[in-house]
Amino acid sequence: MAYKIVIWPDNLTTTVNDNENLLDAIVTAGISIKSSCGGAGTCSQCKVLIKKGTASFSGAGKLTEQQLSEGYALACQTYPQSNMEIEIPATSRLSEHQVLVSQDKAWDGTVTEINPLFKKIKLELQIPTLNDHSDDVSRLFNALSAKEKTDPLRIGLEVIQKLPYTLRKGNWRITVSLSYIKDYTEIVDIEPGWDYRQYYGLAIDIGTTTVVAHLVDMETGESLGIEGTYNKQAIFGDDVISRIIYAVEHESGLQELQKTIQTTINELINALIKDKDIKPADIWYVSCAGNTTMTHLFLGIDPTYIRLEPYVPAFNSIIPIKAVDLGLKTNPKARIYCLPSIASYVGGDIIAGAEVVRIHKQDKLTLFIDVGTNGEMVLGNKEWLVACACSAGPAFEGGGITHGMRAMNGAIEHIRVKPGNLDVTWETVGNKKPVGICGSGLIDCLATLMEAGIIDRSGNFLPLLLSNRFFSIDREKYFILAHAEVSGTGKDITISEADVKNLIRSKAAIFAAIQTMLKMVGLSLENIEQVYIAGGFGRYINIADAIKIGMFPDLPMEKYKYIGNSSILGAKMILLDSETRDDTEKLADKITYLELSDGNNFMEEFVSALFIPHTNMQLFPSVNYVSHSE
Amino acid sequence: MAYKIVIWPDNLTTTVNDNENLLDAIVTAGISIKSSCGGAGTCSQCKVLIKKGTASFSGAGKLTEQQLSEGYALACQTYPQSNMEIEIPATSRLSEHQVLVSQDKAWDGTVTEINPLFKKIKLELQIPTLNDHSDDVSRLFNALSAKEKTDPLRIGLEVIQKLPYTLRKGNWRITVSLSYIKDYTEIVDIEPGWDYRQYYGLAIDIGTTTVVAHLVDMETGESLGIEGTYNKQAIFGDDVISRIIYAVEHESGLQELQKTIQTTINELINALIKDKDIKPADIWYVSCAGNTTMTHLFLGIDPTYIRLEPYVPAFNSIIPIKAVDLGLKTNPKARIYCLPSIASYVGGDIIAGAEVVRIHKQDKLTLFIDVGTNGEMVLGNKEWLVACACSAGPAFEGGGITHGMRAMNGAIEHIRVKPGNLDVTWETVGNKKPVGICGSGLIDCLATLMEAGIIDRSGNFLPLLLSNRFFSIDREKYFILAHAEVSGTGKDITISEADVKNLIRSKAAIFAAIQTMLKMVGLSLENIEQVYIAGGFGRYINIADAIKIGMFPDLPMEKYKYIGNSSILGAKMILLDSETRDDTEKLADKITYLELSDGNNFMEEFVSALFIPHTNMQLFPSVNYVSHSE
Repeated sequence: MAYKIVIWPDNLTTTVNDNENLLDAIVTAGISIKSSCGGAGTCSQCKVLIKKGTASFSGAGKLTEQQLSEGYALACQTYPQSNMEIEIPATSRLSEHQVLVSQDKAWDGTVTEINPLFKKIKLELQIPTLNDHSDDVSRLFNALSAKEKTDPLRIGLEVIQKLPYTLRKGNWRITVSLSYIKDYTEIVDIEPGWDYRQYYGLAIDIGTTTVVAHLVDMETGESLGIEGTYNKQAIFGDDVISRIIYAVEHESGLQELQKTIQTTINELINALIKDKDIKPADIWYVSCAGNTTMTHLFLGIDPTYIRLEPYVPAFNSIIPIKAVDLGLKTNPKARIYCLPSIASYVGGDIIAGAEVVRIHKQDKLTLFIDVGTNGEMVLGNKEWLVACACSAGPAFEGGGITHGMRAMNGAIEHIRVKPGNLDVTWETVGNKKPVGICGSGLIDCLATLMEAGIIDRSGNFLPLLLSNRFFSIDREKYFILAHAEVSGTGKDITISEADVKNLIRSKAAIFAAIQTMLKMVGLSLENIEQVYIAGGFGRYINIADAIKIGMFPDLPMEKYKYIGNSSILGAKMILLDSETRDDTEKLADKITYLELSDGNNFMEEFVSALFIPHTNMQLFPSVNYVSHSE
Repeated sequence: MAYKIVIWPDNLTTTVNDNENLLDAIVTAGISIKSSCGGAGTCSQCKVLIKKGTASFSGAGKLTEQQLSEGYALACQTYPQSNMEIEIPATSRLSEHQVLVSQDKAWDGTVTEINPLFKKIKLELQIPTLNDHSDDVSRLFNALSAKEKTDPLRIGLEVIQKLPYTLRKGNWRITVSLSYIKDYTEIVDIEPGWDYRQYYGLAIDIGTTTVVAHLVDMETGESLGIEGTYNKQAIFGDDVISRIIYAVEHESGLQELQKTIQTTINELINALIKDKDIKPADIWYVSCAGNTTMTHLFLGIDPTYIRLEPYVPAFNSIIPIKAVDLGLKTNPKARIYCLPSIASYVGGDIIAGAEVVRIHKQDKLTLFIDVGTNGEMVLGNKEWLVACACSAGPAFEGGGITHGMRAMNGAIEHIRVKPGNLDVTWETVGNKKPVGICGSGLIDCLATLMEAGIIDRSGNFLPLLLSNRFFSIDREKYFILAHAEVSGTGKDITISEADVKNLIRSKAAIFAAIQTMLKMVGLSLENIEQVYIAGGFGRYINIADAIKIGMFPDLPMEKYKYIGNSSILGAKMILLDSETRDDTEKLADKITYLELSDGNNFMEEFVSALFIPHTNMQLFPSVNYVSHSE
């Protein structure tokens, strides 16, 4: 039995079969809806309003009485028993928004010499004679090798099929489209004459939460546009684990996830080429950096064993795939290069960052940290390299925090609480009224709450004078960062004691991972000579505050550099330089992965780090909080 | 306007549009009909009987009055103007027949060690642990490299996609399908466990006239079956030139020719696997040897410039193509390797032969000659190699000779005329009644006619005593080889003066090419230390007679070796040994092509060779004809 479901206010109609629920209907209709738990019925985010029709549903316990009386239900728990009409409220939608992609204040990872993975070359061939009657392919190869340093040349059947005509049509002048693959270079197309269409590449950062793409002019190396959006896979779950579970436990789950990321990328391509004289067929190479799970899902490769001990990915490195095999809206002959992973939880995004900072060329002992949903880090220099990952949780990306959000308009990115009167001042992205708080704001917030004597070293709210900035509901305590009157939502923007504990766990995981990794190689904090920080905290990060809360080691500020989204930077560098690409593969091979769950003292370190800044204050000699409660 | 055409006795119905003739209808219906001129209206071979309907036709002048009165017409010159019924007489059909493919008395080119281009390997992988958590692909590569010497390994997306499941399903035992491509080895498939299906390869000789294929067990190297058939492309013309013209001058001509050779090969595959427990999907590699034009047509590559000065092929060497791109009835993942050509008229069939005789490993100065429609030869040793081609014409394949035929049942393959009473004795293929005469018989015939005093050194019939073996029609003289009473056709089997002159031109071209090539490298006949003869003459060739008629140099018999169809032998050797394959590519690179039309004395040599054995008798010291007419 199939039922028609009309979805408002979109006015879209779709159908569901038996055993399908409203979440299936919404996904089928192509609408992005919040669903962190991947349809398990636990996150309560996929609330919809039932307007017409009957259904069987469970999950009522997840809704308030008022919501139930108003007709709300959880889409994932509602199975239609008639044709229905439903409305998806704005609060349940993953809205399209501008993900912050600018690289202000971040190192720009400029490539000085352009030697892109794809290029077009103008050639003039000698006209054959009875004394020089070599075949067309050899003639082409010889002319090309004379002009261009190439790996061994390949040419496909399709190109040979059009070669005799093209050479003579162009009167022995020809434009050759050359793709650098791996260990060889392929002539992927030819055009008669020298008037060729411009050509472009894409650099993509496939994040679990957001996807960012640069449209790159492959002749100048310039980014002609930058677009970012949510990863539409969010409807299948917020983190990589829930997406793997979805892929494994649903029939065609893997295909759905693959198609969803393809759609996400294709929409970015549409946005990037809109209003420009550029067609999808003018995009000839794509360079993608993503974590190991994202890369598996993008390529349609079973991620099952990433999640199960001993955490084995299906592959780490793969030769560039043809776009036609991945459904990307580019030239079908374009190649898709995915940066190599080194383990299930250290993926191509981290390798991209390690390449951006050229960690394997450094004389100094260098620490590279990328803070996302996980904290991943690489330590070493030109002699040796180790990497590890820890489950920091998405707190610094705004996940699991009452008013946490990513660094978009209205996000508090800098905040100070004045000790004594507890006045709060803040800065927001885009100078909008505050609607939430992003990673850089949360680091500030933890430090300033501590300095203002609002929390103790364990994150407990201290007993304080009555202030209109405090309230509590069901024994949970809240501090108001911005009152309803001044916020962009008309409601208080708050941070709770639970949020603070959550942030402490996140920062503790990162610091514990650094300590564990150092001890595994027999070094300590003072040996670190430079630190590169990457991640989606915001436009900048207050390193001083990050040290104060015990997230990063207590090292002189000048040793730190914040480089923003190094994943997309690395992807772009590689797109523009074939040597960097080869170098990246070698870099990945050089890194030894350390498994933190595997018989070392990570848990001990973690527990010790669950204080601000740390149980052992000697590790943070520069940090000195005045206790206001004493 | 479209008309229905019913074809008898096949009882097939097809339709033609305006501008289409009966030949088009017959081709569309899939019937093989003789048409040497490719539909030009000149060869008069495509005679059909009009039974019903009206048509406009020309070409009446090509038919006898009786044929016209009986209702015959040339299919290629007949354009239907109503629905029609026609009959194709047996004489107009290219009958399926057994092309002689056995290698009796020929060197068998045995490969002593099997290292085939495709193999299946049983592997057992270490089970991953927390201390050994490398990705599935690396684990597979490491296990494979430890067991098998491979070029750099590649693995495609499709195989990676099934890898995680397959490894665990087989409990870390797996069978890997490995294809040697070029400079790298690709894992093209994987199966769980060690119980794999047997695997096979095909070696194919794609001749202009006939196509021969071996089905090869890739584990033992044994040929499980040999099949041969006419190249169905014959309906588009007898020789490579008329096929190139067809490909170039007809819309979709190239596609038609490509499809026709695919069909020819697929029918051979059907015949080879019939009654065996072998499926097309069990064929994993194909090795093809063909002349340059045949290889272009097989791959759908424009052959236009092979025919036009300066005779430039589109390509000589090409990496193995995927079967799925060529419509072959094999495993779609099978690879098709085409042996390299070196010039427009020295193709992969010749390179196959040169590899069979290992000419580039020889200390002795070696001459390799392949006599087919063209005469092609390679001269040299391990130090240097040259090759050339001459238009010998198809006389020694039976083409253009009154009762010429290929070496099949009933072909006279050995013949003697007794001087004096002119009694004729013969041997035929299969000991059948004679129906014609094949290449080896024609060489004998020329020699014996000379010895019996029937022809002079220029090929003129001498005035002789009246004999019932002579007759003449329209000033053309005929000698009866077999009277109607003893022949298999019920008609006299004859040779005409024109046939003799034709044969002399063919043998002269071959000898002149040898002489020209020798002179170009500053050598002469006596420098030749060994000669390998290949071709479709028959089961054997009478070298003594070939010398007597001045076709091959007057060298001691022990310097000669007849190796039969060396094209298919070479294709099979390569299929079974990847090193031989690589060696063949190097061999082709080493050969310098000499263009006989290009400012040398070929024409002079040709004219001097238009005598039996030669104008210059000093070149043939062992040959001494007694003149019976003196």
